[in-house]
Amino acid sequence: MQYFQCDYMEGAHPEILKRLLETNMEKTPGYGKDIYCDSAKKKILEVCGCPEGEVHLMVGGTQTNSTVISAILRNYEGVIAAETGHVSAHESGAVEYTGHKVLTIPGVEGKLRADDVRKYLEVYYADGNHEHMVWPGMVYISHPTEYGTLYTKDELTNLRAVCDAYKLPIFLDGARLGYGLMADGTDVTIEDISELCDVFYIGGTKVGALCGEAVVFPKKGLVSNFFSTIKQHGALMAKGRLLGIQFDTLFTDGLYFKISRHAIDMAMKLKKGFVQKGYEFYMDTVTNQQFIILNDAQFEALSKVAVFEIWEKLADGRTVVRFCTSWATKETDIDELLSMI
Amino acid sequence: MQYFQCDYMEGAHPEILKRLLETNMEKTPGYGKDIYCDSAKKKILEVCGCPEGEVHLMVGGTQTNSTVISAILRNYEGVIAAETGHVSAHESGAVEYTGHKVLTIPGVEGKLRADDVRKYLEVYYADGNHEHMVWPGMVYISHPTEYGTLYTKDELTNLRAVCDAYKLPIFLDGARLGYGLMADGTDVTIEDISELCDVFYIGGTKVGALCGEAVVFPKKGLVSNFFSTIKQHGALMAKGRLLGIQFDTLFTDGLYFKISRHAIDMAMKLKKGFVQKGYEFYMDTVTNQQFIILNDAQFEALSKVAVFEIWEKLADGRTVVRFCTSWATKETDIDELLSMI
Amino acid sequence: MQYFQCDYMEGAHPEILKRLLETNMEKTPGYGKDIYCDSAKKKILEVCGCPEGEVHLMVGGTQTNSTVISAILRNYEGVIAAETGHVSAHESGAVEYTGHKVLTIPGVEGKLRADDVRKYLEVYYADGNHEHMVWPGMVYISHPTEYGTLYTKDELTNLRAVCDAYKLPIFLDGARLGYGLMADGTDVTIEDISELCDVFYIGGTKVGALCGEAVVFPKKGLVSNFFSTIKQHGALMAKGRLLGIQFDTLFTDGLYFKISRHAIDMAMKLKKGFVQKGYEFYMDTVTNQQFIILNDAQFEALSKVAVFEIWEKLADGRTVVRFCTSWATKETDIDELLSMI
Amino acid sequence: MQYFQCDYMEGAHPEILKRLLETNMEKTPGYGKDIYCDSAKKKILEVCGCPEGEVHLMVGGTQTNSTVISAILRNYEGVIAAETGHVSAHESGAVEYTGHKVLTIPGVEGKLRADDVRKYLEVYYADGNHEHMVWPGMVYISHPTEYGTLYTKDELTNLRAVCDAYKLPIFLDGARLGYGLMADGTDVTIEDISELCDVFYIGGTKVGALCGEAVVFPKKGLVSNFFSTIKQHGALMAKGRLLGIQFDTLFTDGLYFKISRHAIDMAMKLKKGFVQKGYEFYMDTVTNQQFIILNDAQFEALSKVAVFEIWEKLADGRTVVRFCTSWATKETDIDELLSMI
Repeated sequence: MQYFQCDYMEGAHPEILKRLLETNMEKTPGYGKDIYCDSAKKKILEVCGCPEGEVHLMVGGTQTNSTVISAILRNYEGVIAAETGHVSAHESGAVEYTGHKVLTIPGVEGKLRADDVRKYLEVYYADGNHEHMVWPGMVYISHPTEYGTLYTKDELTNLRAVCDAYKLPIFLDGARLGYGLMADGTDVTIEDISELCDVFYIGGTKVGALCGEAVVFPKKGLVSNFFSTIKQHGALMAKGRLLGIQFDTLFTDGLYFKISRHAIDMAMKLKKGFVQKGYEFYMDTVTNQQFIILNDAQFEALSKVAVFEIWEKLADGRTVVRFCTSWATKETDIDELLSMI
Repeated sequence: MQYFQCDYMEGAHPEILKRLLETNMEKTPGYGKDIYCDSAKKKILEVCGCPEGEVHLMVGGTQTNSTVISAILRNYEGVIAAETGHVSAHESGAVEYTGHKVLTIPGVEGKLRADDVRKYLEVYYADGNHEHMVWPGMVYISHPTEYGTLYTKDELTNLRAVCDAYKLPIFLDGARLGYGLMADGTDVTIEDISELCDVFYIGGTKVGALCGEAVVFPKKGLVSNFFSTIKQHGALMAKGRLLGIQFDTLFTDGLYFKISRHAIDMAMKLKKGFVQKGYEFYMDTVTNQQFIILNDAQFEALSKVAVFEIWEKLADGRTVVRFCTSWATKETDIDELLSMI
Repeated sequence: MQYFQCDYMEGAHPEILKRLLETNMEKTPGYGKDIYCDSAKKKILEVCGCPEGEVHLMVGGTQTNSTVISAILRNYEGVIAAETGHVSAHESGAVEYTGHKVLTIPGVEGKLRADDVRKYLEVYYADGNHEHMVWPGMVYISHPTEYGTLYTKDELTNLRAVCDAYKLPIFLDGARLGYGLMADGTDVTIEDISELCDVFYIGGTKVGALCGEAVVFPKKGLVSNFFSTIKQHGALMAKGRLLGIQFDTLFTDGLYFKISRHAIDMAMKLKKGFVQKGYEFYMDTVTNQQFIILNDAQFEALSKVAVFEIWEKLADGRTVVRFCTSWATKETDIDELLSMI
Repeated sequence: MQYFQCDYMEGAHPEILKRLLETNMEKTPGYGKDIYCDSAKKKILEVCGCPEGEVHLMVGGTQTNSTVISAILRNYEGVIAAETGHVSAHESGAVEYTGHKVLTIPGVEGKLRADDVRKYLEVYYADGNHEHMVWPGMVYISHPTEYGTLYTKDELTNLRAVCDAYKLPIFLDGARLGYGLMADGTDVTIEDISELCDVFYIGGTKVGALCGEAVVFPKKGLVSNFFSTIKQHGALMAKGRLLGIQFDTLFTDGLYFKISRHAIDMAMKLKKGFVQKGYEFYMDTVTNQQFIILNDAQFEALSKVAVFEIWEKLADGRTVVRFCTSWATKETDIDELLSMI
């Protein structure tokens, strides 16, 4: 049986465990005020090309999303997101729990289009009753999206222009950022993201770490006293070094990018294999998530040899399923899977 | 320089790191639905003597406190706590952020006394305007307390009686539970706590783990769908196995208790050493936190050889400081410290 | 110029002002504990056929919606509503502000269809990840809806059956309830509503009062200590008698129903007049809100003689506008309006 | 039997009812966008000496407190208040419900002393762990206080200086403002309040209106889009004219001040009468609330002829009770009361 249901099935990249072992008995101050956090932050800001920025390390994605969003919004504001955005659908209402509405716009392949956001804002401000509605206060996107798709640099630039016109900050959820940056054909670099977004995070949990997301504010000042907000949200690790050491390792010698690339290689191999066997794909994605359309017979057969995630039912009765690769996927597992289908 | 400022300066107990390494490349389902979490939960319920109960693993203390408290309280209710309770003072308003008031009562050496709680409740219900005030909906205590003190079984039983009379659940914050259970002279066992409290947690972060707190509901049914509440609070780990493996290790062969006992031994040695040198203690505590009163000269001298936490200033100008031992404290460090004072 | 833009343009029914004057210098206890509130509540429960129920008087609609909804829901639950529901769109995020998501379903002419709710619930519970999503905790409908449409008794009964199957309470927003109950052809009585809903409110603000909404729980026990919740939400009037006297007056000698019927008569006269002049209606509604489709010429002409509300733009460029009548509409105003179009 | 238990027992000043009657059938736009609200706001700003400011009309005190406070604070901030402050104790946790802690300081006769606030802030910022605590974000005072006491201009000026030093806005709860402004011996005018506070409100409910509090921001810009915040809090009246007409009346020809002065005259007469009969007062207050200490015999006797509010029990067993006068108190009622004691 081969397992491809998600990209967080294994522990951490061995290099991370090695560093955890080496440093284990060192004594460091708590709450992220240790040398490893400092070092990780510096390396991250450097790679992002924004040495004057700010980095905060948190534990997981939902936590990061709701903490960042609620820190930025004023009480009467909501966050614009694609209907399929993680914050809209799959976080048990974490954003609403902080008192803010998620203002959904239908996305296209998981992406928010600049034009749709502009139209939304135009309609909103043209409505004589808009003060009775939730004010749009920021825009949330993910890259890669929930559907494994990627924004182009043009698309991000256009979104930025719309947001500039309406003075809305952009928050990019990069839970799988590495897999987006290392995908074939993408023209978006981490420096572009630093330039085009007001805040974003670099996912660790799904890219080699046991846990951890690194929130980057390319410029200081968007939020104040964020440390206290993190604490208030229960997102402050006492042993912050656990996050610091992991990100320091990931951002030493480009490890984050190397292991991300590995996942892409594995995904492309898997994709090619399925295509050769005549499988139909739901979308043509270039990242580590691959969506395949299965009829009932295929579904049944595949279920016997692999674990994957059911994504959605199509109107014609067929099922869209997701296969994920990750930094940990072994080429031999792909080979074995492909040999069995 | 010797470091005694807190009990979360090192990484994890080596046995935990070993298990993390051994299991690292195993593939497990996410969100705590793996075999390690299952195993850890079973072992915890067994040691607590409540096999029919429920265990949920979360990452840190503030997160656990606000998630548990807000899951239990109705919207119009608040939580009773000692003024010195962690939820009252040092969590950046995490409980209030969930919409609930912390109803403080002056404690005695960090402890809530049953009589004071009863009086508080009597006064509350006797007040003709009590419906205009926040309803007391549960009681929060910590064991050991912020001051390293311990409840006796009698004290807990009396508190239980008061809470039964008013139908209030008791939540025990056990961030340092191991150090309480293994202290000399305590008559409170983990089974007593399971019997006397409605919910409590077993601290991992301060007792050998990288992170993690195990919330125990000795009986099912106090809260429903707690999994979703955990997710909503950003407290659900994608790689839940990180928590599962740690607690499974801690509750195998009594490791949790053994390493807790070590911290107590170290604390008693440290205490004895300071007493012999004529230092005055602020309170006579039997757990891993020791509070010493220093005059300015002592403070200055001690600052040169050790790092400790400033607790409070006394009216006479002297300073109360805290020395912590932990599972990781080396006897040689104590020896060295004592040789220098 | 004739004004038809909404149903809250005038003050109160003269009978109400008369009673306010008569009772003005009487001394009563505050916070709704006066004889007028008592009397109003008794009369309301009687007319609803649920003498064992509970009535609470609040000031306005948004306040009532968010107070009732947040009192009923558990922290991990959301409220199902039509996309066009008032709570979804036009309350500045008041429900989300209390921490709860509004789970929207496309309605049909403003109404939630039982089948759509059932499908929504089936899909939700069939989703293996539903614990990561907001739990549906109650259903919100309005009667009349935002579009002036009415549920039939069958529709309500079917919705009730679905909600019973999933143990969901139904909350009916009756901000314009009188206009629904007195409409021609409706088969839904206030007693039906008491039987089929778990909680609903009888709108005063739009039906003859200066302000005020009467929340009815046909059975006691759905929420506890609602008085404190009302206070906490800032919805408790110090001089509760202002609400008591108004509802007592409205429910004496059927005044509420008489004045509601007057609004219907006026709406039907207005509708007939517009139809005769060849105007096209957006929907065939039988209550006090009438939606007319205007081309640009008609829009311009009509704007010169009347004030009405712009509802929405159609794809063909025409505009849907709303004309409202109310308890206060004078027949001569309708005559004059019709004479000018 | 004479009634003195509170200052909201009657309806409205007759002049207000008269204006409500006169204007009753006029058609005005909703949500406070009518000419009466406009006029009231202009008159209020004029009397406050801040024509460039902003006024918002809300319904009641708790609502106003929690709406203003939550609009001003950032998520990690709390509001400093006296322990006896209304927001601390008697609003069912309305402030906490919006996610913010009330940071209490012991007051003196209900007043916050500038020195105590300064000390609180000094201690807070000196604490190395203050980022783990709730940040003080504003100061709440009431004038008159819960104890009927008044700040002097010096006291307010000192408080302002402390708040300036720490950049904290001051919010003054003026639920009984008129009774404070018209008290004998006060040196604080409404213009002083406009100058020394960042936001305050002029109470209507307790000073002649059926309901209503007028929030004054002497300078624009402290909060943005407050209209939406009011709506979100359920504090926006559909028929805003009800508030507009009342405040317009109260601020025409100084009615607000005249009727406030009447309450003071009545209070002084009552006080003098009690003093002459040998009663002991708990505090020497110059406003409409008078606190008298009764032994059991006095309590029993007085209970037979008057209704008053029980305030607190003294250690010696005696009871502090409150007598209130108001704009509506009749001199003959005072005479009758005094004749019976």
